[in-house]
Amino acid sequence: MSAGVLYPQRRQRATDDLRDRGVDLAYLTADADVRYLTGMPYGSVLFLFASGRSILLPWDELLARKTAQIDEILPYTDFGRDLVTAVTEIAGKANLKAGSTIEIPSDTGHLRYAKLKDSLEDYRVLCRAEDLSSFISRRRMVKDAAEIAVLRRACAMTDQLIGEVTAGVTDGSLRTEADVAVYLEGTALARGAEKMGFETIAAGPERSYGIHAHPACTAAKFGTPGLSILDFGVNREGYTSDVTLTFARGPMNDRQELMILLVEKAYEMAAAMANPGTGTHAISTAVDELFARDGFSMPHGLGHGIGLEIHEAPFLKSNRETGVILEPGMIFTLEPGLYDRTAGGVRLENDFLITESGHEVLTTSRLIRLP
Amino acid sequence: MSAGVLYPQRRQRATDDLRDRGVDLAYLTADADVRYLTGMPYGSVLFLFASGRSILLPWDELLARKTAQIDEILPYTDFGRDLVTAVTEIAGKANLKAGSTIEIPSDTGHLRYAKLKDSLEDYRVLCRAEDLSSFISRRRMVKDAAEIAVLRRACAMTDQLIGEVTAGVTDGSLRTEADVAVYLEGTALARGAEKMGFETIAAGPERSYGIHAHPACTAAKFGTPGLSILDFGVNREGYTSDVTLTFARGPMNDRQELMILLVEKAYEMAAAMANPGTGTHAISTAVDELFARDGFSMPHGLGHGIGLEIHEAPFLKSNRETGVILEPGMIFTLEPGLYDRTAGGVRLENDFLITESGHEVLTTSRLIRLP
Repeated sequence: MSAGVLYPQRRQRATDDLRDRGVDLAYLTADADVRYLTGMPYGSVLFLFASGRSILLPWDELLARKTAQIDEILPYTDFGRDLVTAVTEIAGKANLKAGSTIEIPSDTGHLRYAKLKDSLEDYRVLCRAEDLSSFISRRRMVKDAAEIAVLRRACAMTDQLIGEVTAGVTDGSLRTEADVAVYLEGTALARGAEKMGFETIAAGPERSYGIHAHPACTAAKFGTPGLSILDFGVNREGYTSDVTLTFARGPMNDRQELMILLVEKAYEMAAAMANPGTGTHAISTAVDELFARDGFSMPHGLGHGIGLEIHEAPFLKSNRETGVILEPGMIFTLEPGLYDRTAGGVRLENDFLITESGHEVLTTSRLIRLP
Repeated sequence: MSAGVLYPQRRQRATDDLRDRGVDLAYLTADADVRYLTGMPYGSVLFLFASGRSILLPWDELLARKTAQIDEILPYTDFGRDLVTAVTEIAGKANLKAGSTIEIPSDTGHLRYAKLKDSLEDYRVLCRAEDLSSFISRRRMVKDAAEIAVLRRACAMTDQLIGEVTAGVTDGSLRTEADVAVYLEGTALARGAEKMGFETIAAGPERSYGIHAHPACTAAKFGTPGLSILDFGVNREGYTSDVTLTFARGPMNDRQELMILLVEKAYEMAAAMANPGTGTHAISTAVDELFARDGFSMPHGLGHGIGLEIHEAPFLKSNRETGVILEPGMIFTLEPGLYDRTAGGVRLENDFLITESGHEVLTTSRLIRLP
């Protein structure tokens, strides 16, 4: 399906949702939501009317005229880049009737909420958890054919990079954390990635105990004796892959071997459960229980959806409330990990696509033993 | 002054402010505020009592135990990483008297505000624009000796990189946007930068019309005939420099020459005005008027403070309300720029330190003509 049809269709579903819920006007501020509905990559507010009309307010008008698939574009600067002014003036220009319902995003700050209430006193202003963005988030959770195709391209590039970086760390041509991170970025950009999916985390043995090592990478050695963690992804056309490799160089002590064993076991168990109809909560809980039997606990979630955001729904956590039932089209990471101040860290992460009959693993990270 | 004294002193001023304003307990969630007061780089909530007590709730406890200069550390996971739970339990554990005043950040979401009000019903809950973070932001606007020293190191590294990248673009060894970005990152990390200050923007002649080109860099040619923009910074110990170079290769047409002339003129004028006692609004307005006389307008602010955030106070904008009077210790960018869909973009940006007698320019970006 061409982008020319895709974006209007997605907007149509969003405005249908507004009408179903009795909302006359709503707006979106999250870059990922706006990109999903218009193709505009960042820095815009998108207004949607139940009538089907939509207006984009970009910060960078030139970029919007070139990129966004939408008819009405008004520079955000026309409203002094002030959201309260923009909402009020757009409601006025559209001749929205007094008493109409305007829904504002659930993450609206309390102080801004008060200003909006004031400025929009002729309207009914709603701020609730179940907002338009939450509807779009549920839509975005299940990828459509165009999105799956893009994510496959991101994952294919990622896999090629996994092979190259593994070879470089093994043969010693990539010696430091920075070597690895810079090799990945330079190669991904040269091959057409939009950018890295996020700041590459390359943590050698001295630093791999950090959940997300800080700084993300340094001039320190990588792949030297002990446990090194490499967590990276590439962004293609807005969509991000996310994988983690662990390099185990030289003999491991008992605690390190146990951590490796448990992480690989947890990964296999979680992968085996990643099928349509299974609840994310059940998978996370099974992994937590596996780790707990040996006295370990994982200081982060088991996985998360990937797409226009690096962390998006579905979230695989032990917290039951945020859980969902897996369904075909969902794409997410599984990334069990264990960390120890002296032993270091072990994490294994790949990207999974739920299919009608089970799942497909889109990337091929693994734990790599080096002599 | 050693870090061992610095952080407690900064916290002392913050808790003094709470006492002055009749607040018994407040908390900070912004990474930059927390790092300023404890040294902990990210992912934490910091609770401060008027009594002088302070408690850090980190996501990564191991990192906090290693990095943060604070006595009381409680893992955020002890509170299910839920802010409402954390505030309520910490107020309870500290035996905060009923009727005490708890100030919550001004950017608290409306829905969370409602939950906090509910959960903290025994206390007086305040959410106002003039919150603890705004007090710290004003403190952070004027750098102390330790901060000036770190920013000088960031700017010195930046200057060295400016020289090298200019040579590489001039002699053709750095040919693409990605070449330039990857050279900068690899070299900065190898020399001990914590990371790049932000995503390097390298935009060749085809893309330099974008205020912030999207994607930030690609495999496209850089420094070829026309106007290329390079906007980058390095982060040292949390503090970020920010500079922009423009490369003008080959003969420029009349419009390009006019844009270059105006940007250089605006830069010189703004620099001449950057002295203690001058209002940021006056400088911004002077530049806007200069551009307007030739029918141009600048689609972004004239400059911004740099420090633990890449954009922080003071903000140099035409909007009078956010303006401040410059004073010694402030460090900020001046970055006049003009953009045209066909001519491309011109931006020149350096980092300025206000001194007792005037200013010091910490970096040496310029417009570079290439044959």
